Amino acid sequence: MPTDPDAHAPRREFDAGLLSPASAGSDAVLADAEVLGALVATEVALVRAWAEVGVAPRAQAAELSSALGWRGTGEVCTGFDAWLPQLAEEAPSGGNPVIPLVPQLRDRTAPELRHWVHRGATSQDVLDSALMLIAHRAGRETLQQLRQTETALAQLAHTGQDRVAVARTLTQHAVPTTFGLRVAGWLRGVRRATERLSGAMSELPAQIAGAGGTLAGYVAVARAELGSEERAVSAVGELPAAFAAELGLATPEGPWHTVRWPVTELGDALVQSVDALGVLAADVTTLSRTEIGEVAESRGGGSSAMPQKRNPAHAVLIRSAAIRAPHLGATLHAASALAVDERPDGAWHAEWPTLRELLRLALGASTHAAELAAGLAVDTDAIAHNLGKTSGLIVAERLSIVLGPIIGAERVRDIVSRVRAGAALIEMLSAESGLAEALAARGGPSIEELADPAQYVGLARQLVDAALGSPAHTDAPAPTEEPG
Amino acid sequence: MPTDPDAHAPRREFDAGLLSPASAGSDAVLADAEVLGALVATEVALVRAWAEVGVAPRAQAAELSSALGWRGTGEVCTGFDAWLPQLAEEAPSGGNPVIPLVPQLRDRTAPELRHWVHRGATSQDVLDSALMLIAHRAGRETLQQLRQTETALAQLAHTGQDRVAVARTLTQHAVPTTFGLRVAGWLRGVRRATERLSGAMSELPAQIAGAGGTLAGYVAVARAELGSEERAVSAVGELPAAFAAELGLATPEGPWHTVRWPVTELGDALVQSVDALGVLAADVTTLSRTEIGEVAESRGGGSSAMPQKRNPAHAVLIRSAAIRAPHLGATLHAASALAVDERPDGAWHAEWPTLRELLRLALGASTHAAELAAGLAVDTDAIAHNLGKTSGLIVAERLSIVLGPIIGAERVRDIVSRVRAGAALIEMLSAESGLAEALAARGGPSIEELADPAQYVGLARQLVDAALGSPAHTDAPAPTEEPG
Amino acid sequence: MPTDPDAHAPRREFDAGLLSPASAGSDAVLADAEVLGALVATEVALVRAWAEVGVAPRAQAAELSSALGWRGTGEVCTGFDAWLPQLAEEAPSGGNPVIPLVPQLRDRTAPELRHWVHRGATSQDVLDSALMLIAHRAGRETLQQLRQTETALAQLAHTGQDRVAVARTLTQHAVPTTFGLRVAGWLRGVRRATERLSGAMSELPAQIAGAGGTLAGYVAVARAELGSEERAVSAVGELPAAFAAELGLATPEGPWHTVRWPVTELGDALVQSVDALGVLAADVTTLSRTEIGEVAESRGGGSSAMPQKRNPAHAVLIRSAAIRAPHLGATLHAASALAVDERPDGAWHAEWPTLRELLRLALGASTHAAELAAGLAVDTDAIAHNLGKTSGLIVAERLSIVLGPIIGAERVRDIVSRVRAGAALIEMLSAESGLAEALAARGGPSIEELADPAQYVGLARQLVDAALGSPAHTDAPAPTEEPG
Amino acid sequence: MPTDPDAHAPRREFDAGLLSPASAGSDAVLADAEVLGALVATEVALVRAWAEVGVAPRAQAAELSSALGWRGTGEVCTGFDAWLPQLAEEAPSGGNPVIPLVPQLRDRTAPELRHWVHRGATSQDVLDSALMLIAHRAGRETLQQLRQTETALAQLAHTGQDRVAVARTLTQHAVPTTFGLRVAGWLRGVRRATERLSGAMSELPAQIAGAGGTLAGYVAVARAELGSEERAVSAVGELPAAFAAELGLATPEGPWHTVRWPVTELGDALVQSVDALGVLAADVTTLSRTEIGEVAESRGGGSSAMPQKRNPAHAVLIRSAAIRAPHLGATLHAASALAVDERPDGAWHAEWPTLRELLRLALGASTHAAELAAGLAVDTDAIAHNLGKTSGLIVAERLSIVLGPIIGAERVRDIVSRVRAGAALIEMLSAESGLAEALAARGGPSIEELADPAQYVGLARQLVDAALGSPAHTDAPAPTEEPG
Repeated sequence: MPTDPDAHAPRREFDAGLLSPASAGSDAVLADAEVLGALVATEVALVRAWAEVGVAPRAQAAELSSALGWRGTGEVCTGFDAWLPQLAEEAPSGGNPVIPLVPQLRDRTAPELRHWVHRGATSQDVLDSALMLIAHRAGRETLQQLRQTETALAQLAHTGQDRVAVARTLTQHAVPTTFGLRVAGWLRGVRRATERLSGAMSELPAQIAGAGGTLAGYVAVARAELGSEERAVSAVGELPAAFAAELGLATPEGPWHTVRWPVTELGDALVQSVDALGVLAADVTTLSRTEIGEVAESRGGGSSAMPQKRNPAHAVLIRSAAIRAPHLGATLHAASALAVDERPDGAWHAEWPTLRELLRLALGASTHAAELAAGLAVDTDAIAHNLGKTSGLIVAERLSIVLGPIIGAERVRDIVSRVRAGAALIEMLSAESGLAEALAARGGPSIEELADPAQYVGLARQLVDAALGSPAHTDAPAPTEEPG
Repeated sequence: MPTDPDAHAPRREFDAGLLSPASAGSDAVLADAEVLGALVATEVALVRAWAEVGVAPRAQAAELSSALGWRGTGEVCTGFDAWLPQLAEEAPSGGNPVIPLVPQLRDRTAPELRHWVHRGATSQDVLDSALMLIAHRAGRETLQQLRQTETALAQLAHTGQDRVAVARTLTQHAVPTTFGLRVAGWLRGVRRATERLSGAMSELPAQIAGAGGTLAGYVAVARAELGSEERAVSAVGELPAAFAAELGLATPEGPWHTVRWPVTELGDALVQSVDALGVLAADVTTLSRTEIGEVAESRGGGSSAMPQKRNPAHAVLIRSAAIRAPHLGATLHAASALAVDERPDGAWHAEWPTLRELLRLALGASTHAAELAAGLAVDTDAIAHNLGKTSGLIVAERLSIVLGPIIGAERVRDIVSRVRAGAALIEMLSAESGLAEALAARGGPSIEELADPAQYVGLARQLVDAALGSPAHTDAPAPTEEPG
Repeated sequence: MPTDPDAHAPRREFDAGLLSPASAGSDAVLADAEVLGALVATEVALVRAWAEVGVAPRAQAAELSSALGWRGTGEVCTGFDAWLPQLAEEAPSGGNPVIPLVPQLRDRTAPELRHWVHRGATSQDVLDSALMLIAHRAGRETLQQLRQTETALAQLAHTGQDRVAVARTLTQHAVPTTFGLRVAGWLRGVRRATERLSGAMSELPAQIAGAGGTLAGYVAVARAELGSEERAVSAVGELPAAFAAELGLATPEGPWHTVRWPVTELGDALVQSVDALGVLAADVTTLSRTEIGEVAESRGGGSSAMPQKRNPAHAVLIRSAAIRAPHLGATLHAASALAVDERPDGAWHAEWPTLRELLRLALGASTHAAELAAGLAVDTDAIAHNLGKTSGLIVAERLSIVLGPIIGAERVRDIVSRVRAGAALIEMLSAESGLAEALAARGGPSIEELADPAQYVGLARQLVDAALGSPAHTDAPAPTEEPG
Repeated sequence: MPTDPDAHAPRREFDAGLLSPASAGSDAVLADAEVLGALVATEVALVRAWAEVGVAPRAQAAELSSALGWRGTGEVCTGFDAWLPQLAEEAPSGGNPVIPLVPQLRDRTAPELRHWVHRGATSQDVLDSALMLIAHRAGRETLQQLRQTETALAQLAHTGQDRVAVARTLTQHAVPTTFGLRVAGWLRGVRRATERLSGAMSELPAQIAGAGGTLAGYVAVARAELGSEERAVSAVGELPAAFAAELGLATPEGPWHTVRWPVTELGDALVQSVDALGVLAADVTTLSRTEIGEVAESRGGGSSAMPQKRNPAHAVLIRSAAIRAPHLGATLHAASALAVDERPDGAWHAEWPTLRELLRLALGASTHAAELAAGLAVDTDAIAHNLGKTSGLIVAERLSIVLGPIIGAERVRDIVSRVRAGAALIEMLSAESGLAEALAARGGPSIEELADPAQYVGLARQLVDAALGSPAHTDAPAPTEEPG
């Protein structure tokens, strides 16, 4: 019978480590105890699948489910934390934790059930399936955080749709944009990543193929039980789907012991998620700079000794995840590309801690992002102030396009350089003889319009609308914007 | 008028470098001259799009197309190789090659057309679009090579469907499999990658958003031509689709100056392709080992001094690509995650050479793989010989499953250890009192069946069938197998 | 007072995780509890340093040392495990674990000592120093394992010095070498890495520079205590050396808040160590293949169901580390290169879990390697058998060099191809008219010599001697070699 | 006879590619033509070394040197550009460019010299040595650029030693520092990297070990020439040093066909160099932001349409290099760790283009950095303006340290929050009853001192002095600083 799960509960809370604040909150689904629970659940699911295809007695499968703490599809078994030290100690000798786990499970099981534990299976079937189960659970939570982030960003984009702001390229003020359009970019990146992750999640397969990928061991077991090769082959043909269904995973299209796209495609989607959050974080850290001050995190992780600081703590931690994630994704690809034989000689083992760490990072980063997005304060005064920093030259590109053909590029350059030296743009333009008339003759814009950043934002509104898609967002509650 | 393209043709042949044999053949679509041609094509496409949406006169667009060597959708312009040295020299000062290219193009253009060159555009619109064009061209060739590889592998899998062979795990002989099933694994990996790459290719977007992502410059241009803000906004609203159509690219869902999934998703698919080929190559180098000798590359890159060698040269080069590709993919993710402002301060620039190199590698590796797969020689004698290396113990797992319940695990271990010490398996089993009867009573297998590796391949045939999918493969021509 | 350390001891044993068998054994110095102990030790060391430079009363420093479990230079404080859950929960909000730790430490300290805790310090001073302390402890153990590996390899190289074996290039039998020379290559790689790691260890600096890198806060503290700016500046000038000495670390040459070579150089040396072990492991997995069988791990992680297997479990796990380590090293470089301002906005935070994981991996891999090397069984029969696999053509290169000028390249090729077809090399050579005389006339070699692989190993013996260096190895105990 | 080198000169200028502005200028030493020249030089060096150790006739070695364009130690041979297309085309089939090169060289050589070309050698000896030669040449130029960068930075640090500026942590204004101290950090990072690179350069070894690492082929050659095994062994014992001397490389400590630290240590040093420049670039892009404006690149890559921009083009390109370099370094480690047998089956081939690209990147980035550092304009007005942005609260940390013990932490917080709300700090402090006296009683500081950022820079001056080291810097010419 499982030990009391509460006895070890505190462990889960700090497994992610003091040194991983970016992964905060990920232990509830990714701690070692969860991994162990997933391994046990996978072993139970196999017996249940054996029963489902008519090879094992249903009663025995039910009894074993109960003895090993089965909690249902998509759940992990609990109550085995006390085994962790021993399993971790013994895993290195055989190379994986399933080898020492199986005898422990058999000891825990009634004698008449024992032969069903791990029957016909190979370590990799169990470990791969358990990792996919863990990934499914962590991915589900990550998706939830990403969707919360999207909702908050959609709100911000909607609110800021007409908030004219500086667009910066290569760190320099370039032309006007809107705050809403910037946010819409964050939103589009996150939404795309969410779609990819959701897609990858729906294809996470169970692994069930036996020592050499032929399922021959499973067939031998079924034949021993059913007394017929034909019936055995037929039953085992249905086993993968039954096994996958018990775990809430996809049925594998074949053995993937060395065909590792299930791991890399998930990894790519996780990295893409962190990338998209990284862009949000890069902009937030930039826009939070003391000299820029256009946004601030609600919590503003401060310092008692330096109260003038308003640290963008969420964004900083998301950035740390964004720096790390690509390397973890690359490790999964490297492992995938080096798979050899019917089970690789190291590449497979390289995946386990890497995938877990990447899941941690994506879940942690998306949790930070959801909080960041929900609480981001926008300083409209600072946005307006910054827009004026170049004395109106934020519209210089437009001057060049509109005035060039009228007064010549040379003259435009002259006006611009006099504005840079201190002259007022609107006065310079008004003093330009015949300009107002020439503009009017061409159907505008007027001089005032020309000099107004708010009149030079192109399709910003339409682009935000397109990004927001559903009009549901339009009657959202009031903005988080605040004057500085 | 374009210079004679032949004058510079030789350059393309060696641009990939002496040091990149793995990328062989990729220069025809990825050399600097191609990049330049794509940049020019992109500039021409913009003018054509302006005409398409009714802002530029169609005649002028046609004239400019002709002057700049336009060759149609999906093609690059040619004849500008002579500009390469100067452009490469000037690119660093502004940070990108579009800046020095634009005046060159204007100089090349008739005075009345000049104002249409690069009109309303920003460097990033041109460079991103040109890179997607280049990527599309290289990706198309890569897909072709991947599909050729698939065809050859399907053939091999079909031919080897019943060829019983050793399955190896952690480098050790484990259980029997079939050569066909191993090949089916290669095939499934490559096919999945092909699908991903094909999917990514179909979404490669043009970039068109202007300096700040609002398309405001384009609107200003359109208004100057059309004399109405409303008509301008409407025309520019159609511009992205028109521009993308000229280039044969997808219409962007919005500005992606800092929303870089188009780059990373392509990168991920390319890396996945190389991963899948890497597995093929890892197995080929392993199975080609002098001591194993189950396969050999047709060409067998040999050595005049060491004629006993039959180097798996294609596989070696594919492996070199497989070691490199994950790092290139990760670089794209790192750049994507660090995008900031409305144009990043370095992350964008990091993408260009990286994406090109990854395209090179994927095209080169798939070209090597297509040749490798088409010419792979299978030594059926060596396969059979290796299968017997463990004196029949390749079926030890089956003995344990089938005999354990009959004669006890202890006795099975005893038989196995006596076989390891030199006894003949079949004799040991035959001598086991009452075993034949006990087996028969349970519906088999017989002792002979039990000891026969060919009778312990589980669902191998079905799995190969499933991987081959279409029955079209079944009446394929004769195998490449050869006795040793 | 510290809580009972035993209460939490089990945690340390499984912190490395079920999924990290390659890092086995690393938790004793790298678990969260160790990190926390290092953070506390760093805070204590600061107070001790304040006393050392005459700013804090020595008695108070001693009292505080005792209260916080100070155990001496190079040691971590113990007894704070109970704080872990809360600290891990609170670390994300401020971005690092030092912020919530400081009030906990003050609460634990007598009121009259409290103001000395963390006095003048900034979080980064404490965290960077603690990480270096942790690194020093883990690195020390890693060096010990590397040196044990070297000793065992030197032994193997010595024993196998004259054991002629096949040299393989691109997986093919090429020419003869000796087993000892192969091992000498492993040894040279490991030894170089050991030197680099040892060098990096000797330069691990303490961090002490205050919020902005000027040590101004420390000067303000010292002035408050000493009542003189001049004396304060002088005392703080000595503070870094005093602080470093308490921790057993190097005195920093200046603030390294954003000058991160101490982290990347350590990282590079750790990756180099794993690289070198990876080569050993790659060769061991290859040479352990069932078809090759030249070596076997002593333990031979087997399978009860497949007793014919002798899995190279150590080598497999080392390889998994070798696949991962380069990506961790690259993450440290990426973080280093993105450092900005006086404390980076994410790059710093990316280092912590990455460096710890890399330390884990290096310590784990070197532990596996030491065991592997100490127990590696060499099968001399298999080595001899493999040498003959190409019917004597392993000396083909020599035939080409020696015979070419005598009988012509054409004739050499003919002989070789007849040997490939089944002829006996020695007979072919003996039948070559006048060859023996021609060889003798040129000072040899004789035909027998020419055909003998053992006579074509060049400087193998000298190269092994050079690699072994000290003659101390020559009277080493008996070899581990065994007939097959 | 070599062809006219000028005929192909233009190629070198654009080989780095339109897409690699960060690598600008690197082609002069790293283009394909240079690689080919290095391969030829290596083959010549071998013959010269054969002569040096008394095996080849000196006259023949001299004749061959002349025929193949030998230009001296450390130089590459020139005049073979016309071979590039064919060699690049043929390299993939054997897997490396040496195989097709050797017959070309023999054809180019007089009949009586031909047998000396590539005599006893294996492809890897030639390719590895040539790569080290190329690396040495590129590294030398990189060191020069790094040293120029150091000189310029030392100048800037000296000039800005007392320029009080804002120190920023996590993007927020924290405490005062000096501009000089920030620059000193850049300098220390670059200087350390320079030392590492210089160290790695001094150990770049030639490779000479033959097909299996035993030098047996070389011994066979020497014996054929000298007629004595003993003399042959002795001569070949001296061959590595002679060969290395011809190339200006270090004598190898043994064969390093699979002991790849020479590649990874060079790679690590190159990455470290780019990292250090990355920090400079990160600060320059940040400080160049329109809102911050403390520095500007001299050239200020601008835009004709947006003249208000002053793009930090050098820094942007350096950042792009800094994002890419860690991944290239990691590729070298991955390749190193996967080396197997006596020549690896792909890992070796992965190094070539990677190392070249990394050399390109380091040389390009250091060239950009030298220009950036030499021309960096410092806006002292902006620095002063930014220092005042937090209304004096830049010294808040000092208030907390100094005033806390006098008026209590509560009261300090109150003052600070009133200053944040608009009160003048100095007035608040002056109004604090008894404060001036209390401060005086404790030996200061005075209220004015307390509120003065310039009086709160701790050891900044001393740290800059320490970083500058030699007093030679102190009488350097006038600063580059300018009022805004």
